[in-house]
Amino acid sequence: MKKINLGLIGFGNIGCGVVKILQQRRLLLAQKIGVEIVIKKICDKDITRKRDVHVDKNLLTRDVNEIINDPQIDIAVELMGGISPAKEFILAALKKGKHIVTANKALLAECGNELFREAAERGKNIYFEASVGAGIPIIKSIKEGLVANKFSRIFGIVNGTSNYVLTQMSKEGCSFANAINAAKIKGFAENDPTLDIEGIDSAHKLVLLTYLAYGRIVNVKDIFIEGISQISAADIAYAKELGYAIKLLAIAKKKADELEVRVHPTLLPVNHLLSSVDGVFNAIYVSGDLAGNLMFYGPGAGQLPAASAVVSDIVDLTQDIKAGLFRPTLNSIEDSSIKSLRKIDEFENKYYIRIAAVDKPGVLAKVSGILAKFGISIASVTQKEKLKAQVVPVVMVTHEVKEKNLRNALRMIDRLKDIKQKSIAIRIEDI
Amino acid sequence: MKKINLGLIGFGNIGCGVVKILQQRRLLLAQKIGVEIVIKKICDKDITRKRDVHVDKNLLTRDVNEIINDPQIDIAVELMGGISPAKEFILAALKKGKHIVTANKALLAECGNELFREAAERGKNIYFEASVGAGIPIIKSIKEGLVANKFSRIFGIVNGTSNYVLTQMSKEGCSFANAINAAKIKGFAENDPTLDIEGIDSAHKLVLLTYLAYGRIVNVKDIFIEGISQISAADIAYAKELGYAIKLLAIAKKKADELEVRVHPTLLPVNHLLSSVDGVFNAIYVSGDLAGNLMFYGPGAGQLPAASAVVSDIVDLTQDIKAGLFRPTLNSIEDSSIKSLRKIDEFENKYYIRIAAVDKPGVLAKVSGILAKFGISIASVTQKEKLKAQVVPVVMVTHEVKEKNLRNALRMIDRLKDIKQKSIAIRIEDI
Repeated sequence: MKKINLGLIGFGNIGCGVVKILQQRRLLLAQKIGVEIVIKKICDKDITRKRDVHVDKNLLTRDVNEIINDPQIDIAVELMGGISPAKEFILAALKKGKHIVTANKALLAECGNELFREAAERGKNIYFEASVGAGIPIIKSIKEGLVANKFSRIFGIVNGTSNYVLTQMSKEGCSFANAINAAKIKGFAENDPTLDIEGIDSAHKLVLLTYLAYGRIVNVKDIFIEGISQISAADIAYAKELGYAIKLLAIAKKKADELEVRVHPTLLPVNHLLSSVDGVFNAIYVSGDLAGNLMFYGPGAGQLPAASAVVSDIVDLTQDIKAGLFRPTLNSIEDSSIKSLRKIDEFENKYYIRIAAVDKPGVLAKVSGILAKFGISIASVTQKEKLKAQVVPVVMVTHEVKEKNLRNALRMIDRLKDIKQKSIAIRIEDI
Repeated sequence: MKKINLGLIGFGNIGCGVVKILQQRRLLLAQKIGVEIVIKKICDKDITRKRDVHVDKNLLTRDVNEIINDPQIDIAVELMGGISPAKEFILAALKKGKHIVTANKALLAECGNELFREAAERGKNIYFEASVGAGIPIIKSIKEGLVANKFSRIFGIVNGTSNYVLTQMSKEGCSFANAINAAKIKGFAENDPTLDIEGIDSAHKLVLLTYLAYGRIVNVKDIFIEGISQISAADIAYAKELGYAIKLLAIAKKKADELEVRVHPTLLPVNHLLSSVDGVFNAIYVSGDLAGNLMFYGPGAGQLPAASAVVSDIVDLTQDIKAGLFRPTLNSIEDSSIKSLRKIDEFENKYYIRIAAVDKPGVLAKVSGILAKFGISIASVTQKEKLKAQVVPVVMVTHEVKEKNLRNALRMIDRLKDIKQKSIAIRIEDI
């Protein structure tokens, strides 16, 4: 049976998972694909630490060149994470004629253009199923299963940590601080959860989903990103009363000849399927012009889910290698009808607004006046119970409004002397 | 650019969709795959009817041999449906060296062993993405995306018609008869909806899902099948009060060395994602030992969703053909740890039971006595408001009980003179 050798760069949690699967499913995979997958080398800076999988010591090395320079290794599997030196390792491996499997969303989001270009020039494939939604085969589905579709939008809950926090806040009525502590205790949040909570990780994944759907790598800096740290238990409760759940969504939407890419907390109708996606689960909602509205749901992280995806990429590459198939273009046909990215000022959304107003006559009239001045019409207003002496939360839902107008109106409202706190505004998607 | 020719057998609704997509996305597909897909011939018994797509008259034929015997045609796309002569056409096309794409679940479920064997002997692939869940890439996902996984179970809502009917009954509180009429008016049910409503179509799809997950084609006759025509608005309402939705599920479950395959109405906890799958949508819930619990959701029928899947199969085949890849074994490694199919008598489930009892002292005691005699313990009992003079519905939820015991107990209960109607029993899945 033909053997295909791989070199593993990064022997951490997911790396151990990949080794486990390739050991335990060796025979099954060989039967399915007619190829024996052999781990020829594993590189990590720490090769002495005890791990939850046993490997022959001779496989281990601290020197990545033992993988990069080994002509018998066909596939380099990069699971070390981070931008540098992962990027240099991948480029070097491509130059030496290896195909790449990686789970490194940050790297692909930041340097995807360079990496995919290098791969295309070398006639090599870069596969990255594990980089979005762990074991959910979302990348294969968009790339191959929906190959003939054009996409009007892709929405996703693509960060398990922040979804866990929002779920906790919603189910337990607790504060953001308490929910994030609970997430840390359960191992669902890192000690410094900034990347997850502030939407950076979601933005990296959004770059990849956008690439798959529209054929272009958007600059992370061009994505509007807002995290969930400003979401309060009160807003979650008020939203629920209005029939909405609050989720951190990564959104790519085509509007005429513009593309909107944004990550932010979003009010979703409670009866939308995405609103039922709780805890550390991920789900990606895809609107294809042929296949319709699809949703892909599953655990968004974890050793075996991510390793399951890495192994599926390896298997696909063994078939490509056996057949001499080079198919980067499956990913990357740019949608030429897209002329530009829509600027945040031009986004149009319905809004949930919460204002902390002093409870006296005339305040609401002033607020309404300002909104009207900016052409913002109100779908509903509810005055809530007093929280502190004299200050009453007023919750409003607007009709569609241009972001810029909303921002300007809120700025003016917040300058009123009867408004005691910065007003809160959260976008609504009535999908 | 390399051209790959296909012959279309069946120019009905989905066939027209395939032609539309291949016309409209000709350039996009050619760019993505580096192959030009050419429709060389279209066969249908009616080639004069006006259709919603325009094709050159020279492509049309009534004689399937113009496809089967044309050595320049690489792929036969069978979209005529039904067992015969679709089966004979596919076998003939395989013998002439063609790969097959089909959406024909009934045929694959009934004759899959023979067809896949013939394909394997000829070194040809049969792809069938459109046969389950229309445009949802569920087959590719199980086969390729989850290639390293073993599956403890697959649950699915795989019939849009019956899901629409149950959704209508639940949302509108209407009867089965009214709901099925509504479905017919909307075009979601055929004039004779038996195949959909009685679970046969779901069973066909279950055969295919079981094949993908466990590598064996189960005989349709060995599947326990129960439809939804006995479900009443009352049961849906009572289930809702207990926190359950009623869905027609196709279920394959591995239990020790046995496989359970069954299609029946099922009480699912309302907070389970599948409970939120409404209307004509389908969803397949897959438990992989590596990737975890995944769900794939989308429209379960329709011209373009189904055609989207057919085209993705055609695209995959163009790549296989270009590379000389033959890969039927990706589907079909039999799970040798499965010794037999579990017999219906041995199924173990919780049950929802509704009994129509005369409202007088002692009846409930007799019923409870019978249940106890068969070792059936009760988790909850609720006596409902009287529906007719003297007859009171009593709703019970059991703990896990062997099917045989439940059936025997109900038979004995129904013989009591104070029980005025056949008792209703619906299985519960607390997943």
